[in-house]
Amino acid sequence: MSYQITIEKTKNPKQKPDEHNLGFGIHFTDHMFTMDYTEGKGWHDPKIIPYSPLSLDPSCMVFHYGQAIFEGLKAYKSVNGDILLFRPRKNMERVNISNERLCIPPIDVDFAVEAIKTIVRVDQDWIPKSEGTSLYIRPFIISTDPYLGVRPSNTYKFLIILSPVGAYYKEGINPVKIYVENKYVRTVKGGIGYAKTPGNYAASLKAQMEAKEKGYTQVLWLDGIERKYVEEVGTMNVFFKINGEVITPSLEGTILAGITRDSTIELLKSMGVKVTERRISIEEIYEAHEKGTLEEAFGTGTAAVISPIGELNWNGKIIQINDGKIGEISSKVYDTITGIQSGKIEDPFGWIVKV
Amino acid sequence: MSYQITIEKTKNPKQKPDEHNLGFGIHFTDHMFTMDYTEGKGWHDPKIIPYSPLSLDPSCMVFHYGQAIFEGLKAYKSVNGDILLFRPRKNMERVNISNERLCIPPIDVDFAVEAIKTIVRVDQDWIPKSEGTSLYIRPFIISTDPYLGVRPSNTYKFLIILSPVGAYYKEGINPVKIYVENKYVRTVKGGIGYAKTPGNYAASLKAQMEAKEKGYTQVLWLDGIERKYVEEVGTMNVFFKINGEVITPSLEGTILAGITRDSTIELLKSMGVKVTERRISIEEIYEAHEKGTLEEAFGTGTAAVISPIGELNWNGKIIQINDGKIGEISSKVYDTITGIQSGKIEDPFGWIVKV
Repeated sequence: MSYQITIEKTKNPKQKPDEHNLGFGIHFTDHMFTMDYTEGKGWHDPKIIPYSPLSLDPSCMVFHYGQAIFEGLKAYKSVNGDILLFRPRKNMERVNISNERLCIPPIDVDFAVEAIKTIVRVDQDWIPKSEGTSLYIRPFIISTDPYLGVRPSNTYKFLIILSPVGAYYKEGINPVKIYVENKYVRTVKGGIGYAKTPGNYAASLKAQMEAKEKGYTQVLWLDGIERKYVEEVGTMNVFFKINGEVITPSLEGTILAGITRDSTIELLKSMGVKVTERRISIEEIYEAHEKGTLEEAFGTGTAAVISPIGELNWNGKIIQINDGKIGEISSKVYDTITGIQSGKIEDPFGWIVKV
Repeated sequence: MSYQITIEKTKNPKQKPDEHNLGFGIHFTDHMFTMDYTEGKGWHDPKIIPYSPLSLDPSCMVFHYGQAIFEGLKAYKSVNGDILLFRPRKNMERVNISNERLCIPPIDVDFAVEAIKTIVRVDQDWIPKSEGTSLYIRPFIISTDPYLGVRPSNTYKFLIILSPVGAYYKEGINPVKIYVENKYVRTVKGGIGYAKTPGNYAASLKAQMEAKEKGYTQVLWLDGIERKYVEEVGTMNVFFKINGEVITPSLEGTILAGITRDSTIELLKSMGVKVTERRISIEEIYEAHEKGTLEEAFGTGTAAVISPIGELNWNGKIIQINDGKIGEISSKVYDTITGIQSGKIEDPFGWIVKV
């Protein structure tokens, strides 16, 4: 497949926000990428146009039946001025995994990576340079048939928007308190849990809100069948270090196959750390704590990269992990991955793609 | 609460579609109702305006995190020209049940019913008159913050759009073939299954597509935990008549509390039929068929009202129900409910609301 991306530059560039007060997902750049899908014609008309509202019929299927997917990755400006992407192909491959589950036609992975590079190049002046900042890239697909019947849409829109984002940890990386969710369930085997689709996030809001009210940053999801096995923490994958071994839930169709998760596993193995992907129960984690072998716990995701867990509350039983401080492994993984992402550390894994 | 609905009539009324070829959810009327929510200000600015595209920022939360809900009901023109709604308050009460699960602020139920009446009155010339036709009413709420963080939105839009729809059964009511889903799961206890929210429909598409490819109209969902108990059929509730007793799955948080389901139970009870709401396993249904006591099966929903089931396929075991013909109870419930809805039969239940 070969497409020509047409580029229409904005005539009214926006004022750029203060780099030291960016937040996350609040500011958007001057341009966006769009491409349409029409049944029988395939994906067509890729273009970069000024960032602008979408005009959609109120009957547009995405509003009613949620047939949509999204991705998230970041571009970094290295000290020598290079623009770096972190494993963008992985994200575009995952688009097609999500698409397949949501009955959305596949995209061309190579072209989609090219589209990301092109839009990032067009808006490269928007990539912030301060420590910890980056340009968040949000590719997403929405179903656009103006039709109220429940079936897959015949038309779609693929968009890429960009948001300069601040450092996740403004005052240094700090362990968070996590509530082990015992009432709500995110998903179950046979469902859409492994797809990056709006419905999974909609399903997570109430648990997240209630945890916040109790003073917790996020929830740790348990499996929907036995309410026993650990799945994800908030919108991140989760890792536990027990007696020197790092354990993370195996991919069994209910959790997202995180790219930071994959990178963490690869990095830990290269460091000689034993990493096991398997089912791990919340009882096992509490028992390890009891025995004094639960050494660290952390979440992995694009936004935070690593989010150390300092406290768990499971049915009122509260445990502190590593005295509520960031652990050695968490720290090492965070420094290495963010170092590679920002070009400060040599990349021995072939993860970095220069724009 | 008291609101004033401002009305701006269209200057360019559309041509109305052929009443004998309407389909479902394809045509939309001249106007729509909209009302906005802003944190701190509440729901405000209810208005009826010409039907027109929504202009939304590409970062609008509904595209990314699916925080949204919807409803579906119908308006009918009776033979004497009255405009009739079927239990609209039930739908608006369900909006708040869905809203609560999705962290969307509640609406005022009485006002929402008033809004439905007002928009239907404005577009009353769009209500088709032919046998079996009606005006489908689609209230829905979408989250509109232009923000990419995962949290409940601070702004929302509540809309009502209207679509004249054709007779569901053009060539008479005919039993359908249903595939008992053994791979995919719609939802699980603790999830969002009981809410009318886009994510549940997105999750259903793949199973529906695969069933269609095998020659089945819809799937019968089993519970996500034991894959044993019957939940819903497609997007409808489901009923089985076994040995004179009508059984329908009880509401345990995984299925939608259908208004046609509720009406069917009330109607059957008034007819002296024994109705039981309880868990019912697919084995029990197959065993009843074996013993010759499975007399009827049907789905209930707003679109079809009653959809008789003529065949089930569970793991390749195919059974015919009532020789693939519509049963006595199914027929009676269909005739009575559609009769009440269209004003042909006296309404002893207080279901009908005149506009």
